[in-house]
Amino acid sequence: MPDAFQFRLLATDGAARRGEITTCHGVVETPAFMPVGTQATVKGMLPEAVRGSGADIVLGNTYHLMLRPGAERIAALGGLHKFMNWPHAILTDSGGFQVMSLSGLRKVEERAVTFRSHLDGAMVELTPERAIEIQALLGSDIAMQLDECIALPAPRAELERAMRLSLRWAERSKRAFEGRPGALFGIIQGGDDPELRLASLCALIDMDFHGYAIGGLAVGEAPQVMRQTIEALAPALPVDRPHYLMGVGTPADLLDAVALGIDMFDCVLPTRNGRHGLAFTRRGPISLKNARHAEDPRPLDEASPCPAAKDYSRAYLHHLVKAGEMLGSILLTMVNLSYYQELMAGARAAITAGRFEEFRHQTQAMWAQGDLPPR
Amino acid sequence: MPDAFQFRLLATDGAARRGEITTCHGVVETPAFMPVGTQATVKGMLPEAVRGSGADIVLGNTYHLMLRPGAERIAALGGLHKFMNWPHAILTDSGGFQVMSLSGLRKVEERAVTFRSHLDGAMVELTPERAIEIQALLGSDIAMQLDECIALPAPRAELERAMRLSLRWAERSKRAFEGRPGALFGIIQGGDDPELRLASLCALIDMDFHGYAIGGLAVGEAPQVMRQTIEALAPALPVDRPHYLMGVGTPADLLDAVALGIDMFDCVLPTRNGRHGLAFTRRGPISLKNARHAEDPRPLDEASPCPAAKDYSRAYLHHLVKAGEMLGSILLTMVNLSYYQELMAGARAAITAGRFEEFRHQTQAMWAQGDLPPR
Repeated sequence: MPDAFQFRLLATDGAARRGEITTCHGVVETPAFMPVGTQATVKGMLPEAVRGSGADIVLGNTYHLMLRPGAERIAALGGLHKFMNWPHAILTDSGGFQVMSLSGLRKVEERAVTFRSHLDGAMVELTPERAIEIQALLGSDIAMQLDECIALPAPRAELERAMRLSLRWAERSKRAFEGRPGALFGIIQGGDDPELRLASLCALIDMDFHGYAIGGLAVGEAPQVMRQTIEALAPALPVDRPHYLMGVGTPADLLDAVALGIDMFDCVLPTRNGRHGLAFTRRGPISLKNARHAEDPRPLDEASPCPAAKDYSRAYLHHLVKAGEMLGSILLTMVNLSYYQELMAGARAAITAGRFEEFRHQTQAMWAQGDLPPR
Repeated sequence: MPDAFQFRLLATDGAARRGEITTCHGVVETPAFMPVGTQATVKGMLPEAVRGSGADIVLGNTYHLMLRPGAERIAALGGLHKFMNWPHAILTDSGGFQVMSLSGLRKVEERAVTFRSHLDGAMVELTPERAIEIQALLGSDIAMQLDECIALPAPRAELERAMRLSLRWAERSKRAFEGRPGALFGIIQGGDDPELRLASLCALIDMDFHGYAIGGLAVGEAPQVMRQTIEALAPALPVDRPHYLMGVGTPADLLDAVALGIDMFDCVLPTRNGRHGLAFTRRGPISLKNARHAEDPRPLDEASPCPAAKDYSRAYLHHLVKAGEMLGSILLTMVNLSYYQELMAGARAAITAGRFEEFRHQTQAMWAQGDLPPR
């Protein structure tokens, strides 16, 4: 397979960027939002529904898939694309974040991270080399280096230790990736310390990755830390490589980050919140659990291109959520994934047209206006 | 709205019948299987997926819908078709069966059945007249009379008491239904006693219903009771009315009953079993929980018209089931609903062609042959 990965910057508007990533499994238009398909499925969604929402790429989780059903098994079955019937692009994370967030017991050493599986309690070892091997077995289009991701706040010495370890793991990941198809992204660590962040980025740039990700955010930090971190890093991010903000975020987070030059996002918010009765819409979030929807015949958004947002009344969605029906989760996940993609498509068009700030302010104004009360 | 209900018998083959029910919401080809949409949703299915499986009609449950969200609320929102975004035909049951099976505390009196809601413990009353009113509020195309359905085995005196009460409720239902659009079916009771069953049917025929249903089966009786009951009743069922076997059954039950002259079925088996990892296929049932599927790249049935049966490996379905992923329930429900519809479509074509027995034996032989082991 040829090394098909390519990034083209098509337009800029201020710091905001409009681009195109080419992979062996199709083109990803950026800014891009990647739905999270943790266990080889975007929860509750048929692959054609994920595609129908506008997604060019989904994220798969190395941590989950290595534990169940296992990377070698997926490889024997033809790779992750075939396994989950998703012929489009896939980015896989390296497992670093989940080891921190899901495994109760873990030991980080120079050579490897060892952790207890949340499934059966078995001790499992993950090295930077094995993380690359797993992602290659999955057939990932974009692989991520193994990193150590720590919760914030944390002492500076601890932030620096984890950042330096992540850099050494980046080097080992890069070596292990040599000769493999697809792309490998480096992950910038350093917590809420701009100096450490910049040092991390500079060292990664020296290693020359296909793309650069900002990791270690959305881990308990104060709200302004994300903005400050991106602001500190953005001017130093290589212009000709994709910039990926990992694990972020709300619709507002996405627009703010696009404004600062971020190209790629993944987050469980649209899927997880959908399953819990919360819809993201042009007029801000709407909680379908709320009794005020019980008799409301209006759809969530009659102007949405998403059938789930326009063909079902709020009263029906409220009923499904209250009754614990799977279809409630399904419809609201569809609504949210569509809205996230609509937001990214809107951002892309606005950047091309040179009016991204106008788009952002109009979008924010609609959110602030809020949901219209029933007549 | 005109009284659009009409039944046309198109062909017979032995006792098996091929027909067509016309409703205000489209034509239902018989023999027909009706997926169960208890809480205004066929669990885990978008309405277009239910339609895509081949269903002309779904069943809605009066008991569940009267308790949540309430019949008056659904009426205010434009009726059940609009509420659940299902523009095709709907049959509603009367609540009698669920009062027996779901409500812990209940009191059956001449005037009404009073029961404790399984949702909030409130005492609720249901009269034959109210059951008709609820079904009219829902906008049902085919309504069912309120009956008393009792568990088997039961003493003859008890069977007769419940059957006689159900007949008096049938009369009241008939009167309450007068002038309303759509159809009302009477329900034959009498348990496992053929004499009581025939007495019930004769009395119902005197009242002249749009269709006749066999109730009170699939309630704990011995396997041969179903066959004996249908055999006893079949010759006496009016030829020009649909014959509906309530709450049945397995694919084998369906073919056996079609052979005896049954036109309509509903059952939770394809949906419930799908959610629990069991697929119905041309080669019999397949439990996807079984570890033997873990590395099997074959689809469930490469010759199926259902994408869920041919576009996903057994290994993937096994993974989804083991991981408790919603998509496993969704795909297996699709597989099962499609298989039930495929079976009914096959039966209809075979009856028209005058070779239903051949079709039945071939289908049974395929089931008996069982699932092919992986090579």
